[in-house]
Amino acid sequence: MSRELHGVPVSPGWAVGKVVQVTAPPPLPAHEEPTTAVDATKARVADAFEAVATSLDRRAQSATAAARDVLQATAMIARDKTLRGAVDERISTGSGPLTAVAGGVEQISSSFIALGGYFADRAIDVRDVGNRVVARLLGAPDTGVPPLTEPCVLVAHDLAPADTATLNSDLVQAVVLAAGGRGGHTAIIAAQLGIPAAVQVAGATALARGTVVAVDGDTGTVTVDPDDELREALQHKAAARMTAASRHTGPGRTKDGHPVALLANIGTPQDAQIAAATDVEGVGLFRTEVLFLGHHAAPTVEEQTEIYREALAPFGDRPVVVRTLDAGADKPLDFATTGETAPEESNPALGVRGLRLSLRNPDLLTDQLRALARAAELTGTPVRVMAPMVSTTAEATWFAEQAHEQGLASVGVMIEVPAAALRAENILGAVDFGSVGTNDLAQYTMAADRTLGPLAELLDPWQPATLDLLARAADGARAADRPLGVCGESAGDPLMACVLTGLGVSSLSMTAGRVGLVRFALGTHTLATCREMASAARAADSALLAREAALRLADDTLRDLL
Amino acid sequence: MSRELHGVPVSPGWAVGKVVQVTAPPPLPAHEEPTTAVDATKARVADAFEAVATSLDRRAQSATAAARDVLQATAMIARDKTLRGAVDERISTGSGPLTAVAGGVEQISSSFIALGGYFADRAIDVRDVGNRVVARLLGAPDTGVPPLTEPCVLVAHDLAPADTATLNSDLVQAVVLAAGGRGGHTAIIAAQLGIPAAVQVAGATALARGTVVAVDGDTGTVTVDPDDELREALQHKAAARMTAASRHTGPGRTKDGHPVALLANIGTPQDAQIAAATDVEGVGLFRTEVLFLGHHAAPTVEEQTEIYREALAPFGDRPVVVRTLDAGADKPLDFATTGETAPEESNPALGVRGLRLSLRNPDLLTDQLRALARAAELTGTPVRVMAPMVSTTAEATWFAEQAHEQGLASVGVMIEVPAAALRAENILGAVDFGSVGTNDLAQYTMAADRTLGPLAELLDPWQPATLDLLARAADGARAADRPLGVCGESAGDPLMACVLTGLGVSSLSMTAGRVGLVRFALGTHTLATCREMASAARAADSALLAREAALRLADDTLRDLL
Repeated sequence: MSRELHGVPVSPGWAVGKVVQVTAPPPLPAHEEPTTAVDATKARVADAFEAVATSLDRRAQSATAAARDVLQATAMIARDKTLRGAVDERISTGSGPLTAVAGGVEQISSSFIALGGYFADRAIDVRDVGNRVVARLLGAPDTGVPPLTEPCVLVAHDLAPADTATLNSDLVQAVVLAAGGRGGHTAIIAAQLGIPAAVQVAGATALARGTVVAVDGDTGTVTVDPDDELREALQHKAAARMTAASRHTGPGRTKDGHPVALLANIGTPQDAQIAAATDVEGVGLFRTEVLFLGHHAAPTVEEQTEIYREALAPFGDRPVVVRTLDAGADKPLDFATTGETAPEESNPALGVRGLRLSLRNPDLLTDQLRALARAAELTGTPVRVMAPMVSTTAEATWFAEQAHEQGLASVGVMIEVPAAALRAENILGAVDFGSVGTNDLAQYTMAADRTLGPLAELLDPWQPATLDLLARAADGARAADRPLGVCGESAGDPLMACVLTGLGVSSLSMTAGRVGLVRFALGTHTLATCREMASAARAADSALLAREAALRLADDTLRDLL
Repeated sequence: MSRELHGVPVSPGWAVGKVVQVTAPPPLPAHEEPTTAVDATKARVADAFEAVATSLDRRAQSATAAARDVLQATAMIARDKTLRGAVDERISTGSGPLTAVAGGVEQISSSFIALGGYFADRAIDVRDVGNRVVARLLGAPDTGVPPLTEPCVLVAHDLAPADTATLNSDLVQAVVLAAGGRGGHTAIIAAQLGIPAAVQVAGATALARGTVVAVDGDTGTVTVDPDDELREALQHKAAARMTAASRHTGPGRTKDGHPVALLANIGTPQDAQIAAATDVEGVGLFRTEVLFLGHHAAPTVEEQTEIYREALAPFGDRPVVVRTLDAGADKPLDFATTGETAPEESNPALGVRGLRLSLRNPDLLTDQLRALARAAELTGTPVRVMAPMVSTTAEATWFAEQAHEQGLASVGVMIEVPAAALRAENILGAVDFGSVGTNDLAQYTMAADRTLGPLAELLDPWQPATLDLLARAADGARAADRPLGVCGESAGDPLMACVLTGLGVSSLSMTAGRVGLVRFALGTHTLATCREMASAARAADSALLAREAALRLADDTLRDLL
C-alpha cells in the first residue's frame, strides 16, 4: 500500500527513486565544562576549522564552476578571521570549545541576517560551517550530503547552500525537505537544475534510506512505495512534457502571433554560457550578487568589467538586463566591517537594502554602472540596467540619472514593492522599462517572509491579491507606454505564463531550462484566451481556485502536461 | 541668530522650552577580565539587578496607573529568572560581569524581537534593564530621564519604554530624538499624551542643557534660539488650534451633514475611563496586548473578563471595537518558553503573527473571545471584535466562525496587509466591517519597517501608493456594502481625515485628544470637497505633493491651523 506525504512544490517535474537521507548536524551537549587550558583549546578548535576548510576545498576541486564558487566561499568563511576571533574570544573568557563555536557562529550569522536579501543566505553558510566544526570536535560523521554513487531522491530537514551548490542533477532525481521555504535557496537552485523538489514535507526525515518514493514537484506530493500505475503515469507525463518543450522554437509568441520575449535568468558568467547556448532571446535578469561573494572588499571596476564582459559576450546582440547589487552595506562580505556598517534592523526585508542603500552610499553603484558601461562597449551586447527595491518615482529618477551619467542609455526598475506596482505609471514614466519580481512582490503583498515555510500558502504566486497587483503594474506600464517583464518564479510556470501574457506582460524571464515548455504554452493559446484566463484567475477567491479557473480555459494539449 | 535642525514629525503641536538631555547609557569597556571568583561575581550582579528593580518599583509608586504597569513590567524583567539565568550561565563559564550582562541581555532581547509586533518593544525594555544594570556595575549615574523640576524639552538619542511611560505632560513640553522611528513607541505615547515630538533629528544630542529650542511637531523642525517673531507665531497657532478643537461637539459629520463616526483608540481600562469622559462616539481600536504584559502566563478567562468589563463599562451603549491579541507565541510573556515556542524568524513583521498564530494555536483566541462575550453581557456595551493580520477570505471566514461560536455577533478584520486592501470586497464580504491600520499598511505597501528611522519618508501616510490602497479598500467595502474605518496614525491628522472621508471611510479612530480638531476639520468641509481633496492627493507623485494638493483645497480656517 502506498501512502502520501504532502508539502509545498518548489521545482516542477516528477521522479521515482530511492531515498538517501542527508546527515543531520549532531546536537550540542546540554552542558559543557568551561575551558581551563585556553591555548590548547584554541589550537584544537583552529584545527577543526582548518579541517573543514580543507574538506570544502577538496570538494570544490571536483565540482562544477558555479558550485566551486559557493564551496570556496564557504571554505573562506571557515578561515575567516572575524569568525575565528569571535570564537577565540569566547574561549579566552572560559567558554568550552563547543559553546565558543556556537556563540561565535551565532554572532556572525546574526550580522549577515541584518544585511538581508541575498546575504541572509550567508548566515546559513556560517551556521553550516559551525555545524561541520562541531561535528569534527565531537568526532561525529561529516554533516551534509553523503557521497552519492547511484541515482536517488535526496531527503533532508534542510540543505545548506554548500550542499545545494553541489547537487548533481545526474544523480539527484528529486529533493524533499522537511523545512525550507518557497523562496529559499534550495528551491531556486533545484529549479535552475531542473530537479523536482518539494519543501515543508511533514514526515520526510522519518523515511528510511532505500525507501522508494515518487516525488511530484508540481503538487508537492511525495508518494511512498508508489504502485506501477502511478509510476507509469508520471513517466508518461514527463515524456510528454519533454516532447512539448522541444516542439516549438524561436521567439516567444501566442498562437495568434502576439510576441512575448522569452529570456533567461543568470547569476554568473558560467550561467551565461549555458543560457546563451539555448534558444532564448536574451537575459531578463542577471543577478550580480554572486560576483560580490567570496571577496573581502568589493571587486574593482576593472575586475567587474572583466566579469561582466565574460557574462555579456556569449549573448552577442541579444539584450541583457542587469540588476544592480541587491544587498545591504557597502562592503557586503567584509566580515571585519559588517557589524559596524550594517544598521541593526529587526526586519531586514523591510530595511535599507537594494537601491535604498545606493541612495545613501552611491560609490558601489557608480563603480558597478561604470564597469557595466565598459563591458557593454567591449562586447557590443545591448546592456540594460535595472534597480532593485524601488518604491517611489524620485528613486527611479535618481537611478536613471546615475546610469545615464555612466553612459548607459536603457534604464529600468524592478517592480517588487507593492508601491511600485500601484504607482507603475508614474515610476515607469521616469525610466525605460519595468520588471516584476514576483517572489518579493508576493512577500510584501501578503506580508509573509518568502523564506518562511509555514507561510508558503500565502506566498503562492496564484494568490489573487498578487495577481491584482501584477495587473495594476501592467495597466500602469500600458498607460506609461513602457514594456513590462516578469522575472520571478512565476514566469517559468507555463500556465501562469499565459495568465501573465493576458495581463499585458511583454517578456518572461526564467531559468533557461523552463523556456521550452513556456514557449509551447504560449504557442497553443491566443492572446484573447490568455486574457480570459487572467480574468478568470483574478475573479477567484483563493490561490487554488485561481489556478483551477485558468486551467479550465487552457488548451487540452497543455492541460495534459500539468 | 537662530538655526534649525530637521527631523521627522511624529506628534503634532508646538512648544518652546529649555533642553534637558537624557542620560545616555555608559559604554562597555573594550576588554574585561574573565571571572575567577564565580560566586562573588554572581552575587554582585544579582545585587545590581535587584537595585535596578527596586528603583523601578519606587518610580512606579509615584507614577500614573498606565505608567505604573510599564514600570512594574520592566521591574519584573529585572527580576526575571530566565534573564538572570542567562547572565549567571555566562559568569559560570568565565565571562566577566559586564560581558555576561551584555550577552544575557542580547540573548533574551533577540527572542523578543522574534515575537514581533508589540512585543518587539519588550526587547527595548530588556536592553534598558541591561543598560541600567551596567551603569550600576560601573558606578555610573542612572541612565534615562533625570528628575525634572520645571517644564523642559526632553532630548535624547532614544527613549526606553520605561522612560516614555513616565513622561509627564505637565513638565515635558516636547520630545526630540536623534534616533526613533515613525511607528516607534515614543511616537505613539507622545501623540497619546499630546506632547509635540520629532524623531530622527540630526544634531539633537549635541544641544547643551538649558538651550532654548522651539519644537514644531507638525513639521519636525527644531529651531535653536528662536526669535520673538517665531515664538509668537507658534503661540498664536497653538491657541487658534485649541479654540478650533472646542468649537464643535457631538457626532462627526461633514459641513453638509455626511456622518463620519469619531472614535477613540485605547489600550487599558485607564485609557477607557479617560476616553469615555470625552465627546467620542465609542472606541474604534481597543488594543489588548498591554493586558498580557507583565504576566508569566496568559491571564485566565475570568481575569480577562474582569479587565474587559472595566474597559467596556465606561462606554455604556457606545460601541467598542476590540482587536484580538496581535503578537506571536502562545504565552507571549513567559520568558521560560519564549525561546522554544517562537519560531526563528528573520523578519518577524512578515512572520507568523496576529491571526496567523491563532490559526495554528487557537486556545488563546478562544479564551479571549469567550471573555469578551462575557464582558459584553455583563456591561451591555456593544462589543465588536476584529482580527489582526488578515490576508485572505479564508482567514476572515475562520475568524468569524470562532467569534460566532462564542456568541459575538459583530465581527471585523484589520486591513493592514496589502492583500486585504486589494481583496477588500471578498474579505469584508465574509465579515461585518473592516478597519484600516494605516501604520502597518504603509509598512508593507512601501516595504519599509515602521520603526526604522532612515525610512521615515517612505512611511509618510501621505505617500500616494498608500492612499491608492486605502482607496482600493474603500471601494471594496462599498462594493461589499460594509462599513470601513481607519484606526491608524492618519485618522488623527485633520487634513488627512478629510481625505479619508473623501475616499469613503465611515469612521475615524484616534487618540481621544485629537478628536476635537478632526471634528472641526470635517465640519468645515463638504463631502464633495473631501472627495476633491482625495483625488488631488492621489494624483500627486510624492507624499509632500499629495499633502500640498489636499491643503490647497482646504478651507482657510483649517489651513490657518496647519
